[in-house]
Amino acid sequence: MNAAAFDKLLVQEVAPRDGLQIEPTWVETADKVALINELSTAGFSRIEAGSFVSPKAVPALRDGEAVFQQITRDPGVIYVALVPNLKGAQRALTARADELNLVMSSSQTHNRANMRMSCERSLAAFRDIVEFTRGTSVTLNGTIATAFGCPFEGSIDEARVIDLVDTYREMGMQGITLADTTGMANPRQVGRLVARVLECVPAEALTLHFHNTRGLGLANVLAAYEAGARRFDAALGGLGGCPFAPGASGNICTEDLVNMCEEMGIPTAIDLEKLIALSRQLHPLLGHDVPGQLAKAGRNCDLHPAPEYVAGI
Amino acid sequence: MNAAAFDKLLVQEVAPRDGLQIEPTWVETADKVALINELSTAGFSRIEAGSFVSPKAVPALRDGEAVFQQITRDPGVIYVALVPNLKGAQRALTARADELNLVMSSSQTHNRANMRMSCERSLAAFRDIVEFTRGTSVTLNGTIATAFGCPFEGSIDEARVIDLVDTYREMGMQGITLADTTGMANPRQVGRLVARVLECVPAEALTLHFHNTRGLGLANVLAAYEAGARRFDAALGGLGGCPFAPGASGNICTEDLVNMCEEMGIPTAIDLEKLIALSRQLHPLLGHDVPGQLAKAGRNCDLHPAPEYVAGI
Repeated sequence: MNAAAFDKLLVQEVAPRDGLQIEPTWVETADKVALINELSTAGFSRIEAGSFVSPKAVPALRDGEAVFQQITRDPGVIYVALVPNLKGAQRALTARADELNLVMSSSQTHNRANMRMSCERSLAAFRDIVEFTRGTSVTLNGTIATAFGCPFEGSIDEARVIDLVDTYREMGMQGITLADTTGMANPRQVGRLVARVLECVPAEALTLHFHNTRGLGLANVLAAYEAGARRFDAALGGLGGCPFAPGASGNICTEDLVNMCEEMGIPTAIDLEKLIALSRQLHPLLGHDVPGQLAKAGRNCDLHPAPEYVAGI
Repeated sequence: MNAAAFDKLLVQEVAPRDGLQIEPTWVETADKVALINELSTAGFSRIEAGSFVSPKAVPALRDGEAVFQQITRDPGVIYVALVPNLKGAQRALTARADELNLVMSSSQTHNRANMRMSCERSLAAFRDIVEFTRGTSVTLNGTIATAFGCPFEGSIDEARVIDLVDTYREMGMQGITLADTTGMANPRQVGRLVARVLECVPAEALTLHFHNTRGLGLANVLAAYEAGARRFDAALGGLGGCPFAPGASGNICTEDLVNMCEEMGIPTAIDLEKLIALSRQLHPLLGHDVPGQLAKAGRNCDLHPAPEYVAGI
């Protein structure tokens, strides 16, 4: 790793959206609001606070309006809402989301399964959203889901991803996210694709969204960072997941990511102790263990008392 | 990552020793033998098959002699035994271990807790073992435990590790292992220390032994590999662990590591399908879930049938 390349890594928290959306247990609006309020004081530049999709498709987030209405906003935080279509964008603007995250899969099959529409229809919806938000202060981020592989179609042609990046940018989207939706990326592929995308997108506009489905999440972060990426999504506790990998990990875990950065000397400006405390509240809130490691292991600096010495044989 | 640097990565399986040693459920000798026999056909160059320590200290491995006696040996596999002292070495040679792994912590406090003796006494024991094995065909590997940090003392001076490497080499040990016993290493530190050690130890003699306690295991492998390391320990299913991090992961998971390599185009010569099948047998054998991700998620090439398309709103 280039010793000069230790500039700041921006961590964007997505647990309230990408984490909670697949939780089978209903999380009360007040608990969502309290979680987001705590996260707002932990140093994140962005928090994905909810989505405005069909409540039938994602019942766990059906209270998006109430959440956005009730949170205490920190002026330094951008509160993001995921939207799939114009109707979602209208709801998100009414709820005063700062940024809309428009998500489409690079693979047709995954977009039909996940968004229940073709890629063409998603892109048409994005154009409507661009028109609808013109002249407002809301910013737009375009996510390319399954950018590193599709669980139905397999590998994804990099040219397809680059084409979508160009399409999003031509539409006027300020930010681009490459999402490894089901954890199929590997560090070599990540380094190569990030380098290509950074030829046409500035680093401050590019987010990498990795899942730890096959244990490669932080290795992929490192490869992307080495290739020049500086913005990363992560979820408290490693919440989230994929319906096709039951028992496997979800998003990369925010506190594990921040710990890696701190240990390596990469600044993040995130309050790690606060994250650990918040992560340890997830089990009682959700009723199950979460994949994050640091909240179980503690930090390196949390030393243990030496056990009493009992000489061996 | 240097595109030319995709030469073979040697994976050494340690589950029968470092994995099973902390299991609370007794694993029958026949089950240990069956596991090792299966691993012997999966392509590993080395398998750490057991330890010869006090049966009171590690009751889970008290059948070391029987295990070494009953396994079916593949002539291409080196069967390793961990030994802490001369008595252990004598037992291991009687049991026909091919290689002895001599383990001492870089930190005095951890060696007293783990090996129940001072570092000085460990080194004296190692000298006895060197004398004892002189003229035999057995090879010696010296492991420096807590080489990247100690849960009692905190950070470890790199000069201390380098000194121990020199001491081990001067004693005549053929192999050196740097072990991150409680998962405190980070990729930057790993790259730096591996580069320093490779100035005095050839890559074919150096093993890296990482734990995934804080989720950094595979990122650390990548950093070590980029720095020139080529031999890595790993445990099927990610078995193992640390008594100071209950619930946290253990050793890096063999099948997750091999999957990363395969996806990156780094050859390992390991039969990944076989590993996944073996890993899926660990839950019934041990009575609990194991940390490995790949056996839950499946490989990238295990595509899912596309769900029936239901158009959205």
